[in-house]
Amino acid sequence: MTNRIETLLAKMKDQDLDGMFVTSAANFYYLSNYYTDPHERVIGVYVSSFHDPLLIVPAMEKPDAKRAGWEFEILGYNDDENPWELLRNFIDDAGNAPQSIGIEYDQITLERFQELQRILPQTSLVDAKEILADSRVIKSKKEYTLLKQAAQLADFGIETGINAIQEGVSELAIIAKIEYELKKQGIQGMSFSTMALSGAQTASPHGNPGMKTIEKGDLVLFDLGVIFEGYCSDITRTVAYKSITDEQKTIYNTVLQAEQKAIEASRIGTPVGKIDLTAREHIEQAGYGAYFTHRIGHGLGIETHEYPSMHSKNELALKEGMCFTIEPGIYVPNTGGVRIEDMIFMTAKGPEQLTKSPKELQIIE
Amino acid sequence: MTNRIETLLAKMKDQDLDGMFVTSAANFYYLSNYYTDPHERVIGVYVSSFHDPLLIVPAMEKPDAKRAGWEFEILGYNDDENPWELLRNFIDDAGNAPQSIGIEYDQITLERFQELQRILPQTSLVDAKEILADSRVIKSKKEYTLLKQAAQLADFGIETGINAIQEGVSELAIIAKIEYELKKQGIQGMSFSTMALSGAQTASPHGNPGMKTIEKGDLVLFDLGVIFEGYCSDITRTVAYKSITDEQKTIYNTVLQAEQKAIEASRIGTPVGKIDLTAREHIEQAGYGAYFTHRIGHGLGIETHEYPSMHSKNELALKEGMCFTIEPGIYVPNTGGVRIEDMIFMTAKGPEQLTKSPKELQIIE
Repeated sequence: MTNRIETLLAKMKDQDLDGMFVTSAANFYYLSNYYTDPHERVIGVYVSSFHDPLLIVPAMEKPDAKRAGWEFEILGYNDDENPWELLRNFIDDAGNAPQSIGIEYDQITLERFQELQRILPQTSLVDAKEILADSRVIKSKKEYTLLKQAAQLADFGIETGINAIQEGVSELAIIAKIEYELKKQGIQGMSFSTMALSGAQTASPHGNPGMKTIEKGDLVLFDLGVIFEGYCSDITRTVAYKSITDEQKTIYNTVLQAEQKAIEASRIGTPVGKIDLTAREHIEQAGYGAYFTHRIGHGLGIETHEYPSMHSKNELALKEGMCFTIEPGIYVPNTGGVRIEDMIFMTAKGPEQLTKSPKELQIIE
Repeated sequence: MTNRIETLLAKMKDQDLDGMFVTSAANFYYLSNYYTDPHERVIGVYVSSFHDPLLIVPAMEKPDAKRAGWEFEILGYNDDENPWELLRNFIDDAGNAPQSIGIEYDQITLERFQELQRILPQTSLVDAKEILADSRVIKSKKEYTLLKQAAQLADFGIETGINAIQEGVSELAIIAKIEYELKKQGIQGMSFSTMALSGAQTASPHGNPGMKTIEKGDLVLFDLGVIFEGYCSDITRTVAYKSITDEQKTIYNTVLQAEQKAIEASRIGTPVGKIDLTAREHIEQAGYGAYFTHRIGHGLGIETHEYPSMHSKNELALKEGMCFTIEPGIYVPNTGGVRIEDMIFMTAKGPEQLTKSPKELQIIE
């Protein structure tokens, strides 16, 4: 039995759960070490206190799951079979009907929940999303190492992007270059759609890059991350091309100071909301409060965005082993936007910044 | 009011629904023309027979949604606000409490469903996923044009991949090259993780590409697609590098014949299951039935995999305007795997193959 499954079994016992049925790709990977994108197909890990755990995958993926190290039974189903019926048969054959099973209410679709209710009419299906969120939020030494490697690759992506800036090159061509160089390093993929925005576009925190070309006087904002051995990175840097206005410079330095203050405020025991408010108050005092339109950050690990959400009202206290982003931004329509984002890992000694790209204002020539 | 929303309102009337609340990214885009990846954040289109439709997005994305052409009200929420409370207030203020609202049971999470139940305790929340699936499965002339352009870009991706094959180059380096060239063409992104598998790896239908290098005698399998103006493509080709065994050649030709027979069988009115069985019977007769471990294909459009699932037991009849893949494969452990996949569009005259890359066996020198 792996450590992760043993920890889960212990937590299930605390909550009087006979079983836990996990269907989200991230928790599935966390428990099985098998990384797969199921699209619309069902995948699942069924952990039971009565017998060995069971993996459910499309039949064609059985050999891949074994190769990833899954040592227990695998229930493979064909595309014209109903996986829920096969699961029902498995549970019937195992004897000992489960009284209560934990599931992820924030992940499972209503349709799948109804299928589970149908095949297990006597079982209560309890919301147990917190069990795995609580485990995943504290990273192991090995996870720390992988996150650090993913962060280094993100730094390389920023460097590649800045080097690709020149007059007339399009946002999409810069993205192509960044991803090309990263993929040659052997990453599994980008952790989300790479962003390179320029000029007025930078004022959209979630803007879509396009064929717009870089021109003198543009701010250029990069937001990117990689997946490296199952773990995600996430970084943002903003630079100026050839020139910058005084107001843009003020915005840049306000964001940078806000980010530094938020990092310094990240101490074990500090509530998450405090980190957000530290940056937010600095930006408000500079007169840009209305233009900082999102939370300070988010947890990351197997997923780019995972528990916890780092917003102003979250009272969760920071603990050793947490990993999250700090990413204040100011977005002024027509003037432009600046965001600076780093990955922070909480150590016993304080916040360690995993991403290391330079942050002082750079005017690219 | 857009045509799509008017069609939806008419279908809602047929089913006695006062409202429809759509939260999946694909249906959200279909109705709003605003393309966004919400990660864990809530997005929604609320279409009501009592008043104009409403869009729900994170506050920071309001300007992007407007720019995409949304002309009605937008409810933006901050990261520390509960979007469900804001929706409740909106519905209360609008008067005329809805008796029944359609939602997507196959998409909405249990947690969000419970939030809707909480804010609308008097409203029945009916499964109405079929309303939008039925609309989306029949593509318009404009959608046909976009799918065809996406297919051409996929062909370009295959050509780029084949040209990148040489002794000692890694699977991931080939993928990097394919994506680099495609992104320079201005695509939005890949429609799924690009696959380039070689040698024994080709025997995994869903294998993960890695640093393995191409060697003489390898089969090389490419499976890729792009997103072009919101529409997805999907193609697979398999080639041999420098040499091929007789058994691999037999497998290749069996797959090719199976694919051709399945395409020829794609006629208006034919049940989907028949397409699968046509290919499957051919492969079984050749003695490889046990190695064709997945369905014949899937619908595609805004999503790479969308309704319908093209499996042997699906009795849905093909109609003009449907777009789907045909992708038989044979995967023999240690010997290797071959898959050939094309995008098919159903016209009044019969099946039109949108992807056009050569299919005769190619031995790359």
